[in-house]
Amino acid sequence: MQAEILSEQRCFGGTQGFYRHDSAETAGPMRFGVYVPPLAAGSKAPVLYYLAGLTCTEETAVIKAGFQRLASDLGLIVVTPDTSPRDTGIDGATGDWEFGEGAGFYLDATQPAFAKRFRMYSYVTRELPEVIRANVPQADLEREGIFGHSMGGHGALTIALRQPDRYRSVSAFAPIVAPSKVPWGEKALPRYLGDEPTAWRKYDAVALIKDGARFPGPLLVDQGDADKFLEPQLQPARLEAACRGAGQALDLRMHAGYDHSYYFIQTFIGDHLRHHAQALRS
Amino acid sequence: MQAEILSEQRCFGGTQGFYRHDSAETAGPMRFGVYVPPLAAGSKAPVLYYLAGLTCTEETAVIKAGFQRLASDLGLIVVTPDTSPRDTGIDGATGDWEFGEGAGFYLDATQPAFAKRFRMYSYVTRELPEVIRANVPQADLEREGIFGHSMGGHGALTIALRQPDRYRSVSAFAPIVAPSKVPWGEKALPRYLGDEPTAWRKYDAVALIKDGARFPGPLLVDQGDADKFLEPQLQPARLEAACRGAGQALDLRMHAGYDHSYYFIQTFIGDHLRHHAQALRS
Repeated sequence: MQAEILSEQRCFGGTQGFYRHDSAETAGPMRFGVYVPPLAAGSKAPVLYYLAGLTCTEETAVIKAGFQRLASDLGLIVVTPDTSPRDTGIDGATGDWEFGEGAGFYLDATQPAFAKRFRMYSYVTRELPEVIRANVPQADLEREGIFGHSMGGHGALTIALRQPDRYRSVSAFAPIVAPSKVPWGEKALPRYLGDEPTAWRKYDAVALIKDGARFPGPLLVDQGDADKFLEPQLQPARLEAACRGAGQALDLRMHAGYDHSYYFIQTFIGDHLRHHAQALRS
Repeated sequence: MQAEILSEQRCFGGTQGFYRHDSAETAGPMRFGVYVPPLAAGSKAPVLYYLAGLTCTEETAVIKAGFQRLASDLGLIVVTPDTSPRDTGIDGATGDWEFGEGAGFYLDATQPAFAKRFRMYSYVTRELPEVIRANVPQADLEREGIFGHSMGGHGALTIALRQPDRYRSVSAFAPIVAPSKVPWGEKALPRYLGDEPTAWRKYDAVALIKDGARFPGPLLVDQGDADKFLEPQLQPARLEAACRGAGQALDLRMHAGYDHSYYFIQTFIGDHLRHHAQALRS
């Protein structure tokens, strides 16, 4: 459980760190970032997990999203895991930005080639929190929220819908809301989970809602209308229809002219941090 | 004067763009970034130049400094030039992060090998503003401020001290205040300007002040005390002594625990933007 410090740097009165540890879930080393806001000695802060998208790492949001300023003001610890295990040596796990390393889809793979290493669902929901507990004494693991972008928005929504009593708040930027129905998921889910579509449903926010999953608070979702992935991959109307049909509260905000990038994310991340901070107040 | 659009992306209600143009001063193509805040139709905004440090490009601050949020709020256009000409093919201009490409030091070289291409002083102060005037109709070139980091802090201070009637405000993060006296400058200045130290003085903020240069407003300078370059390369005490001796107003702020990185810059850039916005009000 001991994490190795890769770097720690002062930022907005707190500390932005990067760490590495030996992961049992993914059977290899994993990296993650933690921002700890300035806190009075002995006091604790809630933990907000940020799940990044395809091709991204534990560094992407830390460098590009501009969350530290408001996390400092609001007293939030922000944890940024990598998007998959790395250097797996598995045939087919590299060379395609939409699958494998950098594209773990926050699921536990069942297919033999991937089942040992690609366990990002269990990593994010079970092992990583214990690593945070053991290494970040300021972290209050009784108060957790989760958000993410694109593939990571998919991760945040599916994780929160499957563990609604645990996470107090969830939000997403440009999430893949129905991976079973779009090219990114149609490519990745069979290779990780097999060809039977029923196995995909617990990793699909729209399918989870249709199957009865509910989150007690609203799902906050921001989406740019100039996002080139909007129609082929994201299709927020599917989430809107599922939530309307199920009575699930959804705050879907469409933003004119914004694309899929961190210029979009940084513009609205303040609203997300305030959304989570309100739910995470002790 | 026509600049080619490389990309334009919505950010905090404005537009973050990257552009390329054929530069006469540097005898080759140059890239730069421009952030234009949201503005009423037909209205103009002042222009704030940000000069980046060694190894950086026109993208570095745009991605890492987090300036767009407050530039949007305050109505500032932020221009980020590259740190040197590129692909010069000049012997010795690549392969050393402290000299040549990525290390233009915001001077006009006089040594034969570099004199044709390495003209960043004239590029930043003369050509780039005209390119902005021709391509960014919202830019009010009657209101200009300048700031930068490290080598770019050196650039901002020396440019403002040499043109005090033109720039309305200046600030710097961890600037090289006396390049003539520290290893980075002792390596670069002779190769760009020749061995005679008197030729270096107009590209040295401390020397300029000792030689009589003054800026009408205060020099705002932030410096982290955990910056590994503090003692060998930066030496803000030299600037403090020169300003005290000359009666030049200086607001030098030392920050405990902060290093040389953009985690430091993003923490304090809000203060810089407010400093410039106040001076740049019409």
